[in-house]
Amino acid sequence: MSKWVYGFGAGQADGDASMKALLGGKGANLAEMCGLGLAVPPGLTITTDVCTHYYAHEKSYPAELEAEVKQALAAIEETAGAKLGDPEKPLLLSVRSGAPISMPGMMDTVLNLGLNDKTVEGLAAESDDARFARDSYRRFIQMYGDVVLGIDHYLFEDQLEEVKRDHNYTLDNELTSDDLADLIERYKDIAQTETGNPFPQDVQEQLWGAIGAVFSSWMTPRAITYRKLHDIDEAMGTAVNVQAMVFGNRSNKSATGVAFTRDPSTGERRHYGEFLINAQGEDVVAGIRTPQPLTDAMKVATASDLPSMEEVMPDAFQELASVFDKLESHYRDMQDIEFTIQEGRLWILQTRSGKRTTPAALKIAVDMAGEGLITKDEAIDRIEPASLDQLLHPSLDPDATCEVIAKGLPASPGAVSGQVVFDSDEAEKLGNAGLAVILVRVETSPEDIHGMHAAKGILTARGGMTSHAAVVARGMGKACVSAAAGIDIDYGSKRLRAGNHEIQAGDLITINGSAGEVMLGAVPTIDPVISDDFATLMTWADQRRGLRIRANAETPDDARTARNFGAEGIGLSRTEHMFFDGDRIVAMREMIFAETVEGRRKALSKILPMQRADFVELFEIMAGCPVTIRLLDPPLHEFLPHDDQEIEEVAEASGMDGDALRRRARELREANPMLGFRGCRLGIAFPEIYEMQARAIFEAAIESEKKTGDAVVPEVMVPLIGTAREFEILKAQIDKVAASVIEESGGKLTYQTGTMIEVPRAALQAGEIAKNAEFFSFGTNDLTQMALGLSRDDASKFLETYIQQGIYPTDPFSSIDVDGVGLLVKLATDQGRAIRPEIKLGICGEHGGDPASVAFCHKIGLDYVSCSPYRVPIARLAAAQAAAAAFER
Amino acid sequence: MSKWVYGFGAGQADGDASMKALLGGKGANLAEMCGLGLAVPPGLTITTDVCTHYYAHEKSYPAELEAEVKQALAAIEETAGAKLGDPEKPLLLSVRSGAPISMPGMMDTVLNLGLNDKTVEGLAAESDDARFARDSYRRFIQMYGDVVLGIDHYLFEDQLEEVKRDHNYTLDNELTSDDLADLIERYKDIAQTETGNPFPQDVQEQLWGAIGAVFSSWMTPRAITYRKLHDIDEAMGTAVNVQAMVFGNRSNKSATGVAFTRDPSTGERRHYGEFLINAQGEDVVAGIRTPQPLTDAMKVATASDLPSMEEVMPDAFQELASVFDKLESHYRDMQDIEFTIQEGRLWILQTRSGKRTTPAALKIAVDMAGEGLITKDEAIDRIEPASLDQLLHPSLDPDATCEVIAKGLPASPGAVSGQVVFDSDEAEKLGNAGLAVILVRVETSPEDIHGMHAAKGILTARGGMTSHAAVVARGMGKACVSAAAGIDIDYGSKRLRAGNHEIQAGDLITINGSAGEVMLGAVPTIDPVISDDFATLMTWADQRRGLRIRANAETPDDARTARNFGAEGIGLSRTEHMFFDGDRIVAMREMIFAETVEGRRKALSKILPMQRADFVELFEIMAGCPVTIRLLDPPLHEFLPHDDQEIEEVAEASGMDGDALRRRARELREANPMLGFRGCRLGIAFPEIYEMQARAIFEAAIESEKKTGDAVVPEVMVPLIGTAREFEILKAQIDKVAASVIEESGGKLTYQTGTMIEVPRAALQAGEIAKNAEFFSFGTNDLTQMALGLSRDDASKFLETYIQQGIYPTDPFSSIDVDGVGLLVKLATDQGRAIRPEIKLGICGEHGGDPASVAFCHKIGLDYVSCSPYRVPIARLAAAQAAAAAFER
Repeated sequence: MSKWVYGFGAGQADGDASMKALLGGKGANLAEMCGLGLAVPPGLTITTDVCTHYYAHEKSYPAELEAEVKQALAAIEETAGAKLGDPEKPLLLSVRSGAPISMPGMMDTVLNLGLNDKTVEGLAAESDDARFARDSYRRFIQMYGDVVLGIDHYLFEDQLEEVKRDHNYTLDNELTSDDLADLIERYKDIAQTETGNPFPQDVQEQLWGAIGAVFSSWMTPRAITYRKLHDIDEAMGTAVNVQAMVFGNRSNKSATGVAFTRDPSTGERRHYGEFLINAQGEDVVAGIRTPQPLTDAMKVATASDLPSMEEVMPDAFQELASVFDKLESHYRDMQDIEFTIQEGRLWILQTRSGKRTTPAALKIAVDMAGEGLITKDEAIDRIEPASLDQLLHPSLDPDATCEVIAKGLPASPGAVSGQVVFDSDEAEKLGNAGLAVILVRVETSPEDIHGMHAAKGILTARGGMTSHAAVVARGMGKACVSAAAGIDIDYGSKRLRAGNHEIQAGDLITINGSAGEVMLGAVPTIDPVISDDFATLMTWADQRRGLRIRANAETPDDARTARNFGAEGIGLSRTEHMFFDGDRIVAMREMIFAETVEGRRKALSKILPMQRADFVELFEIMAGCPVTIRLLDPPLHEFLPHDDQEIEEVAEASGMDGDALRRRARELREANPMLGFRGCRLGIAFPEIYEMQARAIFEAAIESEKKTGDAVVPEVMVPLIGTAREFEILKAQIDKVAASVIEESGGKLTYQTGTMIEVPRAALQAGEIAKNAEFFSFGTNDLTQMALGLSRDDASKFLETYIQQGIYPTDPFSSIDVDGVGLLVKLATDQGRAIRPEIKLGICGEHGGDPASVAFCHKIGLDYVSCSPYRVPIARLAAAQAAAAAFER
Repeated sequence: MSKWVYGFGAGQADGDASMKALLGGKGANLAEMCGLGLAVPPGLTITTDVCTHYYAHEKSYPAELEAEVKQALAAIEETAGAKLGDPEKPLLLSVRSGAPISMPGMMDTVLNLGLNDKTVEGLAAESDDARFARDSYRRFIQMYGDVVLGIDHYLFEDQLEEVKRDHNYTLDNELTSDDLADLIERYKDIAQTETGNPFPQDVQEQLWGAIGAVFSSWMTPRAITYRKLHDIDEAMGTAVNVQAMVFGNRSNKSATGVAFTRDPSTGERRHYGEFLINAQGEDVVAGIRTPQPLTDAMKVATASDLPSMEEVMPDAFQELASVFDKLESHYRDMQDIEFTIQEGRLWILQTRSGKRTTPAALKIAVDMAGEGLITKDEAIDRIEPASLDQLLHPSLDPDATCEVIAKGLPASPGAVSGQVVFDSDEAEKLGNAGLAVILVRVETSPEDIHGMHAAKGILTARGGMTSHAAVVARGMGKACVSAAAGIDIDYGSKRLRAGNHEIQAGDLITINGSAGEVMLGAVPTIDPVISDDFATLMTWADQRRGLRIRANAETPDDARTARNFGAEGIGLSRTEHMFFDGDRIVAMREMIFAETVEGRRKALSKILPMQRADFVELFEIMAGCPVTIRLLDPPLHEFLPHDDQEIEEVAEASGMDGDALRRRARELREANPMLGFRGCRLGIAFPEIYEMQARAIFEAAIESEKKTGDAVVPEVMVPLIGTAREFEILKAQIDKVAASVIEESGGKLTYQTGTMIEVPRAALQAGEIAKNAEFFSFGTNDLTQMALGLSRDDASKFLETYIQQGIYPTDPFSSIDVDGVGLLVKLATDQGRAIRPEIKLGICGEHGGDPASVAFCHKIGLDYVSCSPYRVPIARLAAAQAAAAAFER
């Protein structure tokens, strides 16, 4: 036979913390605390099974429920020394929901249940405080009226306001006991009018009404929506907790408070909290009275002139302190505790793991591991990897006031201020002159790289989390807000409109890339501080993880940052970013406009030494590590001048005919460049391009080894492969270049040739491709675009709607779409390994820095992930957590 | 022990026609004819296994080969009554390659082998014709020198020209016997000089030299390239055929000719062919002498004044006629036969299935099935489905001369002439005025539909086989050449440049969409004639096929054409094509520019009656058939005005603010519209659009049923689904509209709701989607674009290179990519059927009209294919062939 009701109180409980699915989070936790022998107000929990039964049987209860509730209630009454409905010594109850997963604010609560016209007198007599009793009763009628009877709460509030107006009161607590008696009558009249029945005086009716209301609240539209948004299973249902009320507002020997077992801001090991004498929990939050510090130390630290609890209630404080220790060592985590002291007696109402800042989380985890309270693996698990981001970038001063004029996507974290610049050349000029500038563009392209480098931050009107601006900004560790809604940029007049604000070039703004906000003026920011705890935790993470971590980097700066953050190699070096500087773009355009192989070769021969020099520098920085270099990927039109004026400039500079240039530019234009003439298609059509690049790589590898004595292993990566034959042709070409370079130089060379897997067909045909490819690097940005048919530059128009409606659980460009893209990655992994067991497998899309995606990569057995330099610590930690999870569970 | 050599001759043979893999096509066929008792010059075939051995063992032969050749040669000598190298009665041999698959012109041949300084005299004496013998010898030296000794053939030709010049000869046959003796000496000197050795006099050395040359020719670069292009397996190797020579030029009792067993132009059952007395095979082809008709009937038909073979060689003709009957009934197909008469004796040199025109192929197949020679299934198999295309469209007059000024893709078949127009409005104006116009655009968009309708044909500078222009033109049955290479269009000056030609608006051009050619002026064309044979064969095909055939159509004209061609329903009706006409585009733009749901609803309410009227007309035409209607698919910016002037026009007409319009247009612009805000994403973001469309469909279904009494089953198709949840949301919305319409009208309604599968993720998640979807229609155009990462509008720049290099076997937009796209279709089919066994599965991409793709659809078990109306007959036939193939093999 099922057990539908679980009782707790007086130091024992039917349940414990492991029974969350059955008792809900709150019920299980209350039972657990009782089991620990803590003073918890006695109560009972009606299980989630009853909720399931309720909805499966037309909102009716199991036959045994009433008897079980009666029996458990008798135990509560016995422990509390009071009886529900007893006119002499009435027991008051709270009735609360409690689902297995917390849904804050979503579901209903009834307090002070058990009051009626008779028991209110008993309560008054017992507490010797008629005002308290009447106030409790009128609150109960309002709450019950709203939650159970469905009466609009404005009706009650109107009456309350009327009474206050009649007496010229400002605050609720000015109401006298008589005023409250009047209000109770008015409230009961409202109930009579609205429901056609008198307000229920039968306490059993009250109780079952409240229980029914809580179960019903499981299926309110807002609860349903909340669950959809948070992917919570509807079938699990909610439990109902019925608990004896305790009061911190009975007298000056009563109090209520909230405390943390350690400092949630810094993580220091000292109690931390606030309390109020003769008050209820809501008063601490409401901010009408200033709460007092819990400890003497805190009083000093906050320079409070109010006495501490340690001073004024030393016994209760000592008891509380010992509860703190008990709870922290029991739950093995910093706790956030709610307590009430009723007439000198301490009651613990709730405990849960306390929220904390990232530096505090690091300190607490490392300290607790040091104290032996938790293991190192647990310490690793305690840190949310994504939270590390805020440690590495400046943040807004929380005390600063600011006006947010536009919201966009938090594309790259950090808060920075600077003057608005609409043009990359201008940004470079001002930036080099030492000015702080924010580059503002509709969207950025590879031509803006120099401007982005010179700017403190980047703001774009379009593009998503993985737009060019976002990807490059993250790579550079610069703040970026992308797709700022409602921003209209007019390059012509150098103006930007955001709502009613008009901003001109030169005006100061602040962007907060961690929150996606744009603010007027220069808002103060705080610089990041990297603690020893961070370094310690990272060391532990490195010992645990199986995945190797690489970085996506091409500039020397990025590569150095990556190594500093612990990258073990480069997983993606985009060679096209090297083609935009100074003379290079001229030679590149000459190559594109050439009409013959010879013409192209001539132009490429100018680029070769520059490209080789880049690689030499990169290889020296990365000495001893693998470096994956992607051959030219973007469509050629990205390198071309866009408007007539620019074309004329190129024509003049190069001596080429303007009309011919225009025609060629027209020919190269594409309807869908993402799916166009790019990647290895360029290598197939113009073999001389990849030949030049392969030569630059191999020559640089030999040269840099001579300098450093520590060879890199260049991994030549061919982008956009869709068929095995494409790769076969290009690999033969690359191998031929390698053989030539080895012969010419007499040097040694170890290299690998592999491919991006970013076209869905490549994932489906990965076995065939693996016959020739020595590694796969999953380019999950493009793979996501193609597998989902979703342009990352255009998706911002509807992505928000899609996430709201639960079509995507989250932005698929931020966290890998496991069922679609993930399936393709898994298929390719399995096929690739089947054909070539030693094949090296990694991921180099933006997902490489996303913890959930890193966990996925670990699970399917990739060898490494590669991400932006600033995300390397996140990836290291996420990989360690994934390894621990796989080990433990 | 292996048998390396197969002999044939004297009415028997070691091999037969089934042994093509071992003996090559030619060798197997010669053996087969010998087996039939026909007079075939005796010979031997060295097997393809020897070729394999040759390349596996450093170009050496199996040990037993020499003895086997010797033995088989002895049999030839016995049959021929002559001996190789015999100075009295020398046997002359031909040595030819013969691979299992014909590679015309790719490989080498040596004729007249066995001649040397002595045997040439024997041949002269025996034939009593010294000139003939010497001419044969000098030809042999030249051919052997070129093929076996590797001597540049120009060296021989120079000498020949010198001798002719010395004697003032114009033609080779003016050379006297003495001249030829002189030439032989000169040729032998060349061989001596070039090789350092005398020309081989040893006939065995000659024989083995020729055999080795044939085997070596298997690996020449041009042979390798040819095999790559035609996807021929290199491993199969070639056989070598050594055969006794016969001569049609021995005397006036000798002759040579080529014949067909039926008329290859019309298919009529009458012998057809030409011959020449005292001539060799090459003389018939060379065109120096006019060949004579074979039969009296042909003499009359061609109005020849030359005597027929039936007249001048009645005995040989009778024998030949009986050979014709024997061969045709043996091979059960119309034969193309080469024969030689040497001194009155008939020799059959070759027989093979004859090439024929499509009308002839139809007539022959239907006739032969009527004669009982083949079955109806075989008749169905005899017709190349794609060849039907030429029956349905006008073609160029083969006698006309023309100048091709540009080549593009054969995007939609048919040959038409008209004056060049660069603008769709202009095309409509002139077209409606009765003028023939060719619409010339860089590429077309849905806004050009009216212009395309009014034009005779369409020419575009860009886009592939499945670009907008190509797809729409095929749907309309209009000729179209797309992606015409090297064409530069300047709309401003209304000029088009193609190579050196400049064409102005109003100039006449002709385009041949069957060949992808553009010609100057109006080239004469021939109208199609559809025969009874066509109707008969189609009936047989329909009886055989399992796949149902639908058409892609939205206009009444297209729907009628589709039904006329035998379509059994509509598989794709694109509703957006209905949004461009007249008032509709105004309302559509109003909807797009509206900033509120109400604004959009107001505009949509104007479109509703127009859309409903369209559907009523469509449903009346398709009464009793299923009609699949795709909800709005393209991105909204496709409906917007493009330039400032147009925007001002819209602003004026609508009373909206020009700046606001411009801003909205800017907002809607996309980097990759293919992967952007389109398809069901519009339906999710703006539910009112699909609600209007669903209402129009359902109201039209009820209204049209009232009119015709024969209900259509509308199939509401949601485009671009990528997740199960998207479809769940939209289906609920559509069902809700259906319920309202049913309630309001009191009518009955049977409908289905399903989705395009065109996003790779949808194919991977098809099982989940099938939980709600009643049908899948594979949109293989977009599925190809996304799975291959290949924009159909941009791929023309490199697609040709890709096909040449064997990366794609063929254009993946024309014929389904089985390993990639096909795999996704198969996965989705299997998953969909597993979840919902009765799910209806079809394909509606351009592949629906491609025979290979139709065969694939049959194989994986789809229910139907849907294609352009003009391709319906092709699909019917291809489906029948696929069914027969599955049944027989």
